[in-house]
Amino acid sequence: MIKIEIITIGDELLIGQIVDSNSTWIAQQCSNIIGIKPSWFSTVGDNYDDITNAIQLAYKRADVIFISGGLGPTNDDITKTTLCKFFNSQLVVDNDVYQDIETLFKNRGFAMTPLNASQAEVPNNCTVIRNKLGTAPGMLFENSNKMLISMPGVPFEMKGMFSSFVIPYIQNKYNISKLYYKSVLTQGLGESFLADKLKDWENSLPENISLAYLPSQSIVKLRLTSSGNNFDVEKKQIDNKIQELNAIIGDLIYGFDEDTLQSVVGTLLLNNKKTIGTIESCTGGYIAHLITSVSGSSEYFNGSIIPYSNQLKNSLLGIDNNILETYGAVSMETVEKMLLSGEKLLKTDYIIAVSGIAGPSGGTPTKPVGTIFIGVRSSKNNKSIIKKYIFGNNREHNIIKTSQTALNMLRKLIIEENS
Amino acid sequence: MIKIEIITIGDELLIGQIVDSNSTWIAQQCSNIIGIKPSWFSTVGDNYDDITNAIQLAYKRADVIFISGGLGPTNDDITKTTLCKFFNSQLVVDNDVYQDIETLFKNRGFAMTPLNASQAEVPNNCTVIRNKLGTAPGMLFENSNKMLISMPGVPFEMKGMFSSFVIPYIQNKYNISKLYYKSVLTQGLGESFLADKLKDWENSLPENISLAYLPSQSIVKLRLTSSGNNFDVEKKQIDNKIQELNAIIGDLIYGFDEDTLQSVVGTLLLNNKKTIGTIESCTGGYIAHLITSVSGSSEYFNGSIIPYSNQLKNSLLGIDNNILETYGAVSMETVEKMLLSGEKLLKTDYIIAVSGIAGPSGGTPTKPVGTIFIGVRSSKNNKSIIKKYIFGNNREHNIIKTSQTALNMLRKLIIEENS
Repeated sequence: MIKIEIITIGDELLIGQIVDSNSTWIAQQCSNIIGIKPSWFSTVGDNYDDITNAIQLAYKRADVIFISGGLGPTNDDITKTTLCKFFNSQLVVDNDVYQDIETLFKNRGFAMTPLNASQAEVPNNCTVIRNKLGTAPGMLFENSNKMLISMPGVPFEMKGMFSSFVIPYIQNKYNISKLYYKSVLTQGLGESFLADKLKDWENSLPENISLAYLPSQSIVKLRLTSSGNNFDVEKKQIDNKIQELNAIIGDLIYGFDEDTLQSVVGTLLLNNKKTIGTIESCTGGYIAHLITSVSGSSEYFNGSIIPYSNQLKNSLLGIDNNILETYGAVSMETVEKMLLSGEKLLKTDYIIAVSGIAGPSGGTPTKPVGTIFIGVRSSKNNKSIIKKYIFGNNREHNIIKTSQTALNMLRKLIIEENS
Repeated sequence: MIKIEIITIGDELLIGQIVDSNSTWIAQQCSNIIGIKPSWFSTVGDNYDDITNAIQLAYKRADVIFISGGLGPTNDDITKTTLCKFFNSQLVVDNDVYQDIETLFKNRGFAMTPLNASQAEVPNNCTVIRNKLGTAPGMLFENSNKMLISMPGVPFEMKGMFSSFVIPYIQNKYNISKLYYKSVLTQGLGESFLADKLKDWENSLPENISLAYLPSQSIVKLRLTSSGNNFDVEKKQIDNKIQELNAIIGDLIYGFDEDTLQSVVGTLLLNNKKTIGTIESCTGGYIAHLITSVSGSSEYFNGSIIPYSNQLKNSLLGIDNNILETYGAVSMETVEKMLLSGEKLLKTDYIIAVSGIAGPSGGTPTKPVGTIFIGVRSSKNNKSIIKKYIFGNNREHNIIKTSQTALNMLRKLIIEENS
């Protein structure tokens, strides 16, 4: 299998001014479309020695080297002249590129500057990759079975070049078969507990299938990747293994690949023609925000009430001050009332209600920071489910975990009632 | 000057599943706080040879090596065992770390698994950096004048460790003089318009002060950084330049450095003993989420209503169906009613109300996607300000821009009334 290295060039990356989304995008294309996971990313500044050393190292260990960045018209961009020296070549004007640039400027109604004209100069021993979206051409250097492809750093120019030229060129040259991979999305159990539960299953995975745990907040993504040569066989292997997984942790799995809890819940509501609303105290609107971040959510999301103060819990929801005083705003009893009022006021089929102590302050000995009550309710079956959780001390995390947990509780309730 | 290399480890980076935001964040800290731009980023997978080679190379060229990733409890994470071999050491249980992990699990109400317990094992020749936010400790290896620091890949754990331990440790060890820098935060004018307005001021900056424009959504951060050796002189220079800036674009400046619109608004409300609530349609709770993301916001945030459907605009807020039909839900008239109802129902001094078409669908010829009405109101002076904006086609951006613009309108209103 060929080895791939991605080199990104630019001082703006090294000072952290922009995130290196080009490496990530190229890596996605390599992994998902070409079927080869890159082995290394390197980032260096606009500096002759560092660029040269990075290319030298990449030639030692990789077969295919992608470079992006440093091809702009200004003096700080030196990738082209560095490549020219590296490959012992000379810059010559490429007439096609010159015309491309001239046309581009004409279309934009600008005159071409000498700096832009110089972008038509390319090393005389490379294959030019024409840039349909900007002024800097790409460059392909090939020797024996290795290749180096230099592309602009402007994301949409690089992407255009990569999709239209680079992918088919590489697939063809190396006669590459496709890779199969799938991510299983789980919510509700931490990475280590999940790994403990899946020990035997993990050990039963064939050698050509690798597993990675990717946790974030209360979600753990399980990524299965094949590394063999037979796409169809591996697809079947992975699909079978996911069926087994379903038998072990089916209750934790809410989706696959690009799904989110809010998109999955949204689809369920849409398919079952049901509506939803939220009554949020400690999450302060974050659940409503997640739901409405999905385009088309107005089809099933009626609205929310955020009774942050106790006064509003009483005046907006009609929760008796006795209940608030006796049990507290953070209690099973208050959340039950929030669900019931919410159902009436928001006129929905399903309701989520949450109340808790997001922190970092506000805890008591009996209700420490991170104590959260999460309720979901279905009006059809007159059924409320309320659970108590104790998360951590971090406000942001408590808000996110509460929201994810609430959406997953609702997902299970909808499935239970509509299957 | 010492040279810095950042190594990130993880297959999820190499397949492009997540973007390498850790390198970017560490690079920002190095450049802005420590005052040294890193020279290289390297990314490798969870693979013994590749990690070892990356460390070997980094030791050749860099003085300080930061590693993040690969410290999780599961089998795919091998950074710790790789470091252990690299430094010819053995894993031993660190009692402090063991207790940290035990406490963390106890607080969350879980029992510790053997996998988590194994996270308390560290190489016997490193200095342990305790992790206050998770289970994986950091590790510091020092020899002669070089050092390697291994940190978890979970961003908030890494950031906590870096800010509290790494920065002061490095400043102290290499006796690095502090750099003075300050960020001026503006809202409401795009980068290129701002740059145009500030041309003369920018040209008047002394050579040792550099300016960077850092735009995100409707916010542009102006970062001023000194590169001299005299902290006090540079501080004075930059502070003077900011005074000049204030005279040119004072109305756009809402804060400095780590301020956010929601923290600035929160402080203003707190200082003036005023309360706030929101009535949100197109932002779906995002403004309330921003406000309540600030710890202590319950002091001034009463609550919100999110009347997403027209039915709820009528039933919850009492907005006449005539108004909704004649002018539409996205109109000056509807937002005015939202403000008035909100003031009564939420019992607050100030109210924000927004209604718009977040997109990507739902636009009409007269109200294209991105049309948003934003209102703020003060009950004291019986004064509503409502403005119409036309943002873009991107749902997420429209939600964020609307929220930022609304908070800034409110900020100005509070200042105007209370100064």
